[in-house]
Amino acid sequence: MIDIIDEIQNIVGPGAVLLGEDVAARLDSWPLIGGCQARAIIRPANTEEVSAVMKICHANGQSVVTHGGLTGLVGGAMASGNDIVLSLEHMATINTVDTINRSVTVGAGAILQKVKAAAEEADLLFPLDLGARGSCTIGGNISTNAGGNSVIRYGMIREQLLGVEAVMADGTIISSLSGVLKNNTGYDLKQLFIGSEGTLGVITRAVLRLHPLPRSCNTALVAVEDFDRLGRFLRVIDAALGGTLSAFEVMWNDFYQLIVADGSHHGKPLGDNHQFYVLLESTGAQQAADKIRFEDALEAAMANDLVSDAVIAQSKQQRQSLWAIRDDIEGLWKGLFPHISFDISLDILSMDDYVNEVRAQLTQRWPASKMVVFGHLGDGNIHLVLTVGSMEASEVQAVENIIYGALGHREGVISAEHGIGLTKRQYLKHSRSDAEIALMKTLKQALDPQGILNPGKIFSLEPEQATST
Amino acid sequence: MIDIIDEIQNIVGPGAVLLGEDVAARLDSWPLIGGCQARAIIRPANTEEVSAVMKICHANGQSVVTHGGLTGLVGGAMASGNDIVLSLEHMATINTVDTINRSVTVGAGAILQKVKAAAEEADLLFPLDLGARGSCTIGGNISTNAGGNSVIRYGMIREQLLGVEAVMADGTIISSLSGVLKNNTGYDLKQLFIGSEGTLGVITRAVLRLHPLPRSCNTALVAVEDFDRLGRFLRVIDAALGGTLSAFEVMWNDFYQLIVADGSHHGKPLGDNHQFYVLLESTGAQQAADKIRFEDALEAAMANDLVSDAVIAQSKQQRQSLWAIRDDIEGLWKGLFPHISFDISLDILSMDDYVNEVRAQLTQRWPASKMVVFGHLGDGNIHLVLTVGSMEASEVQAVENIIYGALGHREGVISAEHGIGLTKRQYLKHSRSDAEIALMKTLKQALDPQGILNPGKIFSLEPEQATST
Repeated sequence: MIDIIDEIQNIVGPGAVLLGEDVAARLDSWPLIGGCQARAIIRPANTEEVSAVMKICHANGQSVVTHGGLTGLVGGAMASGNDIVLSLEHMATINTVDTINRSVTVGAGAILQKVKAAAEEADLLFPLDLGARGSCTIGGNISTNAGGNSVIRYGMIREQLLGVEAVMADGTIISSLSGVLKNNTGYDLKQLFIGSEGTLGVITRAVLRLHPLPRSCNTALVAVEDFDRLGRFLRVIDAALGGTLSAFEVMWNDFYQLIVADGSHHGKPLGDNHQFYVLLESTGAQQAADKIRFEDALEAAMANDLVSDAVIAQSKQQRQSLWAIRDDIEGLWKGLFPHISFDISLDILSMDDYVNEVRAQLTQRWPASKMVVFGHLGDGNIHLVLTVGSMEASEVQAVENIIYGALGHREGVISAEHGIGLTKRQYLKHSRSDAEIALMKTLKQALDPQGILNPGKIFSLEPEQATST
Repeated sequence: MIDIIDEIQNIVGPGAVLLGEDVAARLDSWPLIGGCQARAIIRPANTEEVSAVMKICHANGQSVVTHGGLTGLVGGAMASGNDIVLSLEHMATINTVDTINRSVTVGAGAILQKVKAAAEEADLLFPLDLGARGSCTIGGNISTNAGGNSVIRYGMIREQLLGVEAVMADGTIISSLSGVLKNNTGYDLKQLFIGSEGTLGVITRAVLRLHPLPRSCNTALVAVEDFDRLGRFLRVIDAALGGTLSAFEVMWNDFYQLIVADGSHHGKPLGDNHQFYVLLESTGAQQAADKIRFEDALEAAMANDLVSDAVIAQSKQQRQSLWAIRDDIEGLWKGLFPHISFDISLDILSMDDYVNEVRAQLTQRWPASKMVVFGHLGDGNIHLVLTVGSMEASEVQAVENIIYGALGHREGVISAEHGIGLTKRQYLKHSRSDAEIALMKTLKQALDPQGILNPGKIFSLEPEQATST
């Protein structure tokens, strides 16, 4: 009987199969904990090879974990020694940009930053942007429905896709790559593969929607003194900027204090005694006119007592300095060691109350705990980063129960961006009803009856064990 | 044995059940051909009643057709004498608008125009807009993934939904109404119900995303002399307007000639000898500044020889006069009696060639045929309205084969907006592969194993008959 790996090697060629030490030398998770444990790493060259490999796996009940850039934060790409890893690194073609339809067709293995660069060379913008841009892949971005810095203006990647091609568990190719913006011919099948973390299909190609490249950029750091003003400021400034608001990133006072502390390299563009700091940005078509509008809108917000202080970037360098504060994740981790981080969404009106409740509970249990809060407030999404001085599993779980527990009755969600993967699986029920989870399992069962695609991610198909959560 | 209708009446009350002549007196299709033929029309008061009714229907294999505003164009709401109709007209609640999260929760039976008005009263915009706004319902809009006049700026309704609640075939309530913009906690189940024309669930409520209400509006009618210039003009003007372009509606010369013919009430804002007419609109935040930008952008396009003539609306009334030309569907139908109309999407670069090919084929077969072309060019979506002087089924089918046949090798789609319903079912394969249609049927089978929800719409679950197409 021919071994399944040999069978696969006959299709993809020996150079496309990694075994033994070559597998262990590669990673399958981030932060970079350890080596990949898969039976083999297969690197197909095209969709037809992916299809042929999946047919073999399907016939043999062989589980498959798809790998992109391995920058996920929830263990969605972790493979066990029973799994085969399908790495799409050899499927990274970026086709010629279509400047009239404003789209580009790319392989799932294409690196986000390269796609963005290709668009820019054609004087267009692919707006998706996140810290991992230099190594994450479009396939990974799609299967996790990536968000990032430009959601307030352009939406998640779900809104930036015209077409998706994917291979189903049984090897069937579902190619919905027509690339037109409007297509109401039956079910929109690409939605199945977006954000389903590789559990319903292997994404192989995509048609991405591009936008005009902005010609202007205006940036400010703004101080606001209470949460009510913060919510009203967001609405007023968005209306005043006429749809050109491209960032509304909020840092709570604790975040700002930690990052611009004495001795940090950031300086203090604003004093550290304000309650909230907003990094505000607007992009448009004409620098001179847009600058006037931006300044007028900020002045009006000050006159209306929404904003207490503000500094407007007068150069590219000043802009970068302001963003460096918001983006100083390293400084954050250094100041909060060992850290636990969360990525939640909730109703903006409930946010202040939620943060206060969580902070009180943490302090009660761990008097020396520290937490900082920041995030994409314009999207209803905040990040909480905290330390309780320990990473013991029981301590981490106690923290998770506080963070997620306080979300439930506020109809918040436990993951705005990062996904569920393995690490948040046990908390899925905090955000989704039993009926919703049952429907997810119905879909999984219908599309992947043997459960061979990224097994155990998002939910387990095994009968549930009693838990204490 | 208790009759199923009695059983349902025990749940919803006698006033909520229409029978006999009350059923026949109501319509189930548009254009308004004839009376509804259903066994009964049930008008539940809330989601729980919908669920209870569906449980009874599921237990009895009773087919169900959901009715919204009955403004669909493809027979998606047609019911046979075997079906029960579920009309959501009593589920039209519009909750208080949430001005901070910019959202509103509405019942599926809420009328689009009333939802738009409620948003405007709160100084916000629900951008979905289409001709049927006064009678179509949000539930119908969602189940057909409605598009309309503002897609270029705001997307289809799919992009304007934060949450959807639906009742499955077996009565299970799937309530995904958290209303946050970002939610990556497992599969995005609401996508199943958007655009699936009532075949996978009964939509009962939705959380709609609202936008700032624009403060400025600038409108022009612009003449362009060839298709290449048209495509470039679209890209140049969109970039110059910095994301504020809100309409780019193109009328081919034949459309313009027909509508502004001598004796029409429209006048001729531009001569009738141009190849293409673009109705261009931009909305923003500041009328004075935006007007300058709009005029500058148009002047630059003229200087670059993209545009040969233009008239800019100087008042609300002038704006309305320009839109009245584009919106004169009645004039269109009068001039093309009896008319057949199509709603297709394709690659902008293929459009000119496609229209010419179709026109040549029509003229060859019906020398006296007339066709006019117009549409949302910015979205890759055009409408073809034509007459061949007959509505004989065989003639109509011959026309459809020409229109859809020429789309196939160009990867165009047979319905950009209207959907498939009953009338386009036999042509679905022109736009979707066998694998895609098989996957749609897999989904239908998994979610509605008895096929009781809107049976026969989009595709038939019966074994396919040989056809000549």
